[in-house]
Amino acid sequence: MKQLVLFALAITTTTALAGEGMWAPDQLPQLADQLRALGLEVDPAQLDDLTAHPMNAVISLGGCTASFVSPEGLVITNHHCAHGSIQYNSTEENNLLQRGFLATDKSAELPAGPGSRVFVTVSSDDVTDTILEGLDETLSGRERYQRIDDREKALVAECEQENGYRCRVSSFHGGLFFKLIKQLEIRDGRLVYAPAGSIGNFGGDVDNWMWPRHTGDFSFYRAYVGPDGKPADYAEQNVPFRPKHFLEVSTEGLKTGDFVMAAGYPGRTHRYRLARELEQRIAWYYPTLKRAFDDRIDVVQTATTGRPETAIKYAGMVEGLNNASKNYQGMLDGFAKSDVLQRKKKREQELLAWIEVAPQGRSEHGAILERLEQLVDEYESFRERELYYGMARRPAMLSTARTLYRLSRERQKPDEQREPGYQKRDELRIRERMVRLDRRFDPDVDRALLRHAILRYSAIDTAQHVTAFDAWFGIEGTKIERDNLDMQLDEMYSKTRLGDQRARLAWLDKDAVAFEQSDDPFIKLAVHLFDSDIALEEREKRLAGEFQWARSRYMEALIAQRRSQGLPVYADANGTLRVTVGKVAGYSPRDAVVYAPFTTLRGIVQKNSGEEPFDSPRLLLDAIATGEFGPYEERSLGSVPVNFLSTLDSTGGNSGSPTLNSKAELVGLLFDGNYESINADWDFDTRIVRAIHVDVRYVLWVMQYVDRAHELLREMGLRIDM
Amino acid sequence: MKQLVLFALAITTTTALAGEGMWAPDQLPQLADQLRALGLEVDPAQLDDLTAHPMNAVISLGGCTASFVSPEGLVITNHHCAHGSIQYNSTEENNLLQRGFLATDKSAELPAGPGSRVFVTVSSDDVTDTILEGLDETLSGRERYQRIDDREKALVAECEQENGYRCRVSSFHGGLFFKLIKQLEIRDGRLVYAPAGSIGNFGGDVDNWMWPRHTGDFSFYRAYVGPDGKPADYAEQNVPFRPKHFLEVSTEGLKTGDFVMAAGYPGRTHRYRLARELEQRIAWYYPTLKRAFDDRIDVVQTATTGRPETAIKYAGMVEGLNNASKNYQGMLDGFAKSDVLQRKKKREQELLAWIEVAPQGRSEHGAILERLEQLVDEYESFRERELYYGMARRPAMLSTARTLYRLSRERQKPDEQREPGYQKRDELRIRERMVRLDRRFDPDVDRALLRHAILRYSAIDTAQHVTAFDAWFGIEGTKIERDNLDMQLDEMYSKTRLGDQRARLAWLDKDAVAFEQSDDPFIKLAVHLFDSDIALEEREKRLAGEFQWARSRYMEALIAQRRSQGLPVYADANGTLRVTVGKVAGYSPRDAVVYAPFTTLRGIVQKNSGEEPFDSPRLLLDAIATGEFGPYEERSLGSVPVNFLSTLDSTGGNSGSPTLNSKAELVGLLFDGNYESINADWDFDTRIVRAIHVDVRYVLWVMQYVDRAHELLREMGLRIDM
Repeated sequence: MKQLVLFALAITTTTALAGEGMWAPDQLPQLADQLRALGLEVDPAQLDDLTAHPMNAVISLGGCTASFVSPEGLVITNHHCAHGSIQYNSTEENNLLQRGFLATDKSAELPAGPGSRVFVTVSSDDVTDTILEGLDETLSGRERYQRIDDREKALVAECEQENGYRCRVSSFHGGLFFKLIKQLEIRDGRLVYAPAGSIGNFGGDVDNWMWPRHTGDFSFYRAYVGPDGKPADYAEQNVPFRPKHFLEVSTEGLKTGDFVMAAGYPGRTHRYRLARELEQRIAWYYPTLKRAFDDRIDVVQTATTGRPETAIKYAGMVEGLNNASKNYQGMLDGFAKSDVLQRKKKREQELLAWIEVAPQGRSEHGAILERLEQLVDEYESFRERELYYGMARRPAMLSTARTLYRLSRERQKPDEQREPGYQKRDELRIRERMVRLDRRFDPDVDRALLRHAILRYSAIDTAQHVTAFDAWFGIEGTKIERDNLDMQLDEMYSKTRLGDQRARLAWLDKDAVAFEQSDDPFIKLAVHLFDSDIALEEREKRLAGEFQWARSRYMEALIAQRRSQGLPVYADANGTLRVTVGKVAGYSPRDAVVYAPFTTLRGIVQKNSGEEPFDSPRLLLDAIATGEFGPYEERSLGSVPVNFLSTLDSTGGNSGSPTLNSKAELVGLLFDGNYESINADWDFDTRIVRAIHVDVRYVLWVMQYVDRAHELLREMGLRIDM
Repeated sequence: MKQLVLFALAITTTTALAGEGMWAPDQLPQLADQLRALGLEVDPAQLDDLTAHPMNAVISLGGCTASFVSPEGLVITNHHCAHGSIQYNSTEENNLLQRGFLATDKSAELPAGPGSRVFVTVSSDDVTDTILEGLDETLSGRERYQRIDDREKALVAECEQENGYRCRVSSFHGGLFFKLIKQLEIRDGRLVYAPAGSIGNFGGDVDNWMWPRHTGDFSFYRAYVGPDGKPADYAEQNVPFRPKHFLEVSTEGLKTGDFVMAAGYPGRTHRYRLARELEQRIAWYYPTLKRAFDDRIDVVQTATTGRPETAIKYAGMVEGLNNASKNYQGMLDGFAKSDVLQRKKKREQELLAWIEVAPQGRSEHGAILERLEQLVDEYESFRERELYYGMARRPAMLSTARTLYRLSRERQKPDEQREPGYQKRDELRIRERMVRLDRRFDPDVDRALLRHAILRYSAIDTAQHVTAFDAWFGIEGTKIERDNLDMQLDEMYSKTRLGDQRARLAWLDKDAVAFEQSDDPFIKLAVHLFDSDIALEEREKRLAGEFQWARSRYMEALIAQRRSQGLPVYADANGTLRVTVGKVAGYSPRDAVVYAPFTTLRGIVQKNSGEEPFDSPRLLLDAIATGEFGPYEERSLGSVPVNFLSTLDSTGGNSGSPTLNSKAELVGLLFDGNYESINADWDFDTRIVRAIHVDVRYVLWVMQYVDRAHELLREMGLRIDM
């Protein structure tokens, strides 16, 4: 009987672990038994070591995840993560986004573009005590915010004394814990190989978040460093970076039910947010943002009609807006079918009940839910201003002017007192942004976006208006004279020099006085708004300080409650390295419909219509037609697996995450979640939430049989007998 | 080894039989071995006898199929087959289409409406020799047509000498065989029970032809006859008809892979048509008809905007047009993915090659494919006229006038020489149509449809125009003055009396001279067009005669070829009783998607949005929520099965077909095919073509737990312990 009980326990625990959970690597050794029960064959203790295999091979591109797959710094990530670099190297005559690109040798590899980075996390240290020391509840919110900010900056400054590293302090559980993350910052990444766009982005927006999927969402970079092995700016004499560890590729292949895990840098989740916060999102944020984003898409499309080269400049923005709009709709669709609100409320009641009888009692945590709800309400009371004033300051000319002037003002302070984002360590990035703008800016479209945003802003409740902004654009109450606005905008856009890259870069070296004396209309507007914006920022900072106190107390209680139930607790995603474990599995999206976990080459042929985004290249279709699948065929499917589903827990930022089998070998790349996963950011339903991966067998088959990237395959250790 | 071989043979043969094939009952005894191998448990020889169980219980409603399910003439069919009767009994205050209807006892049963019939097939005799005797190839097409027509009418007249029967001659294989079908014609059908529209038509047009499906597409009639047991018009003293046989209902339930068969009256298929005929359909007919039908929907919708009571009158027409439009799109979608054209061409070449070496040799069949192709081309050469002139004559006022005048002209001949459809035996039906028109006619909509059709007609190539029609509406070349047309139509619609039922019925008794002297503008137009239309009809008849010769020769060769390969051959559907055999099976509509063969009550809840057509009644949702499934639960599904898929071969006309298990017990009603089945009318792909059935367990569960139709359940022999 004893064995039986143990077995039953093991089932329960592994079920609890498989799927939901974005585990920090240092949590994994504690979960060793469950990981082994799930099928992990490597030593769980080894997953904790960021300098060892496999974690050392998992890297960040800032917004995406990637991994080293050769001793010579070859990096694999998603095609959509390399999109910017591919676009950067494209011309009208040689459109790499469309045609794809394969460097004939290392000398032909292309610069990844300004701002591209490869980050290798080398350490992650708990600095909670340093950050929070002495910050008791008597402190005001504003002061609390400032002390934390100052201490974070000090820790970062110290950490970055070693050249070539980038550091940051990340907060976990709403400020309950803090970690100092240290990353090697490689500044010379080069594009090595990207398949044709109609492979890498097959299905486009239509298939985004959808299953069945047939996207070859992979591309290759190579990380370069100076001849001394240290990070360096792009230069001819740079040499490939030699990572301490890289991932081995497995061609053995996965099957339904197999163990998989993925390591990556998920951005944001809200699993522990209050029912009240979710209510706000459902009732206001998601529908309102969806409308606002759809409107902005319309504005851009109207303003770029008949101007294809301008449309290309805004393609990235439109893609992002479409993606977000579909995401918000997915949230609303998901929540409409879900009982998550009731469950959240029930759990909050259970937590309160538990606190009543817990050892620390009411005194410490009793009123914390109430306090947090009050803060949420206070924060929400200016949500219209936050959204619509934010949108009005977003168009490129105004945001450029604001950034430049803010930098000049921050420079008046000692570096350690400057606002994060405007310190010396940030100046290169600001410069890179000013350079990149040329490829994403058109004055007519920018004007249309600003005009639209001003009109939307003007219509919100006047209590939410910003006096300085109203005064500038002649907004009285909710009234604005459109003819006057048009004249004013015409004049601002005809006069400003900020559309010119050299002019923008020149401003980087000017002091605040120069700005205050400028007659560039957008610089003048930035100066005009400055004090008022700082005042708004003060409110945000005060609230942030109060939230940190309240949220961390709430999370402390919640974690204590869960631990008392024997449940391990992971933190919400915050852009730091996490590991998710689960298995290959399909699901049933609705009654009588079953989604199998693997798609095949057959599905590409079925979807191919010849029309974008279902316009497979002839070479691909021909290769499929020959039926030569080599070692990449999955016999049980009679084809090469293209994409697969897993129960892994992921969100934006996980894109490009290496998917590893039980031996920690590379078997795929995570590149999306299914439609039902969209509201997993709030509520993970293990029955239907799935991550979508490109199967490495498809990657390798395309490389070998379509694009003939044989050298790269050999570099990755594959034997190609051709 | 011998056993193994036999087994392999059995597999091959049963696979050939399961799925494709609309078998005439008299073919089934020859297929006995295969039917038994498939799982049939009753004696296959018994399926041949139309006067025995179960075929005697399978009846036609003229356009739909139904079956007797009690000794007191209780009839089960689809809800959509009873739609006309439910609508006929609905009022604005008591909308039975919406609320459903359950007669408290027999006296509360409602008349099915004018024109409703129940046909019980009593015999089906081969009359090929009588029809074709002496008709050799020296006859002209026109003469051949006339001889066949005269002989058919003579056979029918003789057959109908017995009172209460309706007879017809049906042609098989393009006129290779003929059968005289004799049916008891019951004229007093009454509506007994229909669930709420949001059960019976759940999913509406959106789900039409779709899977997964959750439609409770069932309703009940009762057949009544005079006190003498003979068919009689509706009358209070009529008594329930006592069928010799009725179907027993099984609550045992089906599982995936189980044997099923369905008997019914499929309308038309084109499985043996030429590649050239299919090419024409794909290239011209389906896209053109789809556009034409969509246009007509627009015309009706525009003309009924803001007039809900008028919209209701045209709801049936719009539903039919929508259905056809979706069908044509389905055809085009299906053919776009299919290689059927190449296969058809290949098969035609194989047939020609086979004829070369066949015993009868070239002399008899050699040139037949060529001849048939020539006829097809000749027929197609006036396709624009056929379509657009046809559409122009279709609106109610003109078609009514034409029918009435034609009847007066036909009456000048002896009955046996009259055109089929205008004989004495048809006069009651014509009268019923004249009565029914009131519920389907509005002068403004009719005018809009006629105007639209005239404009479309006027634009076709002038070589396809009809001089008499052009002259009437002042069409010159392809030009027409719209203002004049509007004035003319205004006058015609304001003057005509045909919108009045009494006026229409009065014309039924007038002679041709009265028509020729009438100044009713539509009567005048009908008289004006008469000679010209008869000339067009002469061409059709000549071609029909030529087709009969050529097509029957072609089919004779094709059947000989197939028989030489040991393959049984079924005839294309022609509205006669057929049996299809197969099994319960899901399918994969596309890569990585699997459709399970059963839907459940859970799917109703998932689809229910509260908005038509997904607005489940509260009573249904409550009954689902209680979880009381009684004996109707399928344990493996944890719910009541709602609809299921089978491999059966069906088409329009099969609606309402009883679905029988291996013991010939009723387990469901066939009510639709899946989207992939649409082009099965031309080409049956066993991998993806599926019939959709309502599971009898859902029918019974709704009756017991939602509508409490306990008396009916008892009448069907079910034990209800309440």
